[in-house]
Amino acid sequence: MPVLVLDTCSGTFSVGVVTREKVLSEISGGMGRTHASKLLPAVKQAFDLCSMALADMEAIAVTRGPGSFTGLRIGIATAKGLALAAQKPLVGISPLAALAANAPFCGRSVWAALDAKRGQVFAACYNLESGFPLALTREMALTPEQWLEQVVGPAVFVGEGASRYRNFLLERLGNKALFAPPSCCLIKAGAAGALAYDALNKGLADTAQSLFPVYLRQADAKPPQQKAPGKPA
Amino acid sequence: MPVLVLDTCSGTFSVGVVTREKVLSEISGGMGRTHASKLLPAVKQAFDLCSMALADMEAIAVTRGPGSFTGLRIGIATAKGLALAAQKPLVGISPLAALAANAPFCGRSVWAALDAKRGQVFAACYNLESGFPLALTREMALTPEQWLEQVVGPAVFVGEGASRYRNFLLERLGNKALFAPPSCCLIKAGAAGALAYDALNKGLADTAQSLFPVYLRQADAKPPQQKAPGKPA
Repeated sequence: MPVLVLDTCSGTFSVGVVTREKVLSEISGGMGRTHASKLLPAVKQAFDLCSMALADMEAIAVTRGPGSFTGLRIGIATAKGLALAAQKPLVGISPLAALAANAPFCGRSVWAALDAKRGQVFAACYNLESGFPLALTREMALTPEQWLEQVVGPAVFVGEGASRYRNFLLERLGNKALFAPPSCCLIKAGAAGALAYDALNKGLADTAQSLFPVYLRQADAKPPQQKAPGKPA
Repeated sequence: MPVLVLDTCSGTFSVGVVTREKVLSEISGGMGRTHASKLLPAVKQAFDLCSMALADMEAIAVTRGPGSFTGLRIGIATAKGLALAAQKPLVGISPLAALAANAPFCGRSVWAALDAKRGQVFAACYNLESGFPLALTREMALTPEQWLEQVVGPAVFVGEGASRYRNFLLERLGNKALFAPPSCCLIKAGAAGALAYDALNKGLADTAQSLFPVYLRQADAKPPQQKAPGKPA
């Protein structure tokens, strides 16, 4: 049975319907501040393109962070709503592993990175020799300088975090740094599907109650400080 | 300026808007017999997703075969119509090179293959070490046995032609054959975009008059034989 995959972790979104053998449909694009309004129409269209419906899904998979705070909340809230309504298992996927999955059988280590803003990236390193991303590091929030300290040996860089600091990395790493083509720098529902099935195979599915976003650091937006009680305004 | 990329060469379709640095939007799916009715709505949606229009494009790119005869004709006819109407250059792309582009920096040779039906594949081998597909063979229509004769050393197989003959290849090649995950077996407009820019950089753009499909073999469907003149029906 297919899995519905949603990603809204970064400046782009991707929605797809994927089986173990095939990507049945996939819609990806840049979203800016409109994740919320474009996500459900894209879900409907992803189903329409392969003549499927929510009831036909084995599970709902969603990138669970790290990533854009607002994006994450929208993606996870939507996935939870769909999973709860259709009583389907929910699978949280690493958006960094999903990015790395864009470079299967890569002959070098693959550093996947999202732009974390505030001068940081969310990054992790993977081995793709088997075609499937195996984590070589944990997921980290790093400044470019801290990132550089983690990079050992030649590596392929994927993701908008890599594009953002491309010149810096090239300057410091020279020809030890290779950059994946634009098509590999987008998180894609199709590639993320393999991670969803891996989790399902290992019995690692969540429910709408048990899945939580992975933020890796404090939220950018904070509520205004409460006034001390008793003091006049 | 972005390029609009269309693919309808196989059992799937993909439409996307791509710049040199970024995939702005991409819509992919299986189409069966409905390429014609779903292609233009997908083009419109690919534009809508990134708030672009035909007039903003630098060129129109289309997979020029080999592939499904009907699919090719629909894709190329649509691309020619759009290019002619908007007075844009047209770029013909190899669908096999586009498939191979799904495995950048692959540590092995990459065999890209489409199911050519009638017991054949359309296949070609590429080197992806630079991240960009460099052809190691010409594009060929081959039976699985003929294909096997061409495979030297370990290789990664991508595309629906590889999936179709997976068991055969595994049986004969053992662990010399690796199979790319499902997300790499779909021709994707985003990955094909890099080929379009390569052609544009080399001044290899076509016009609606000069682009022709690459069939590699005779059409499956033939007109009924004409009756000899003078003979009664």
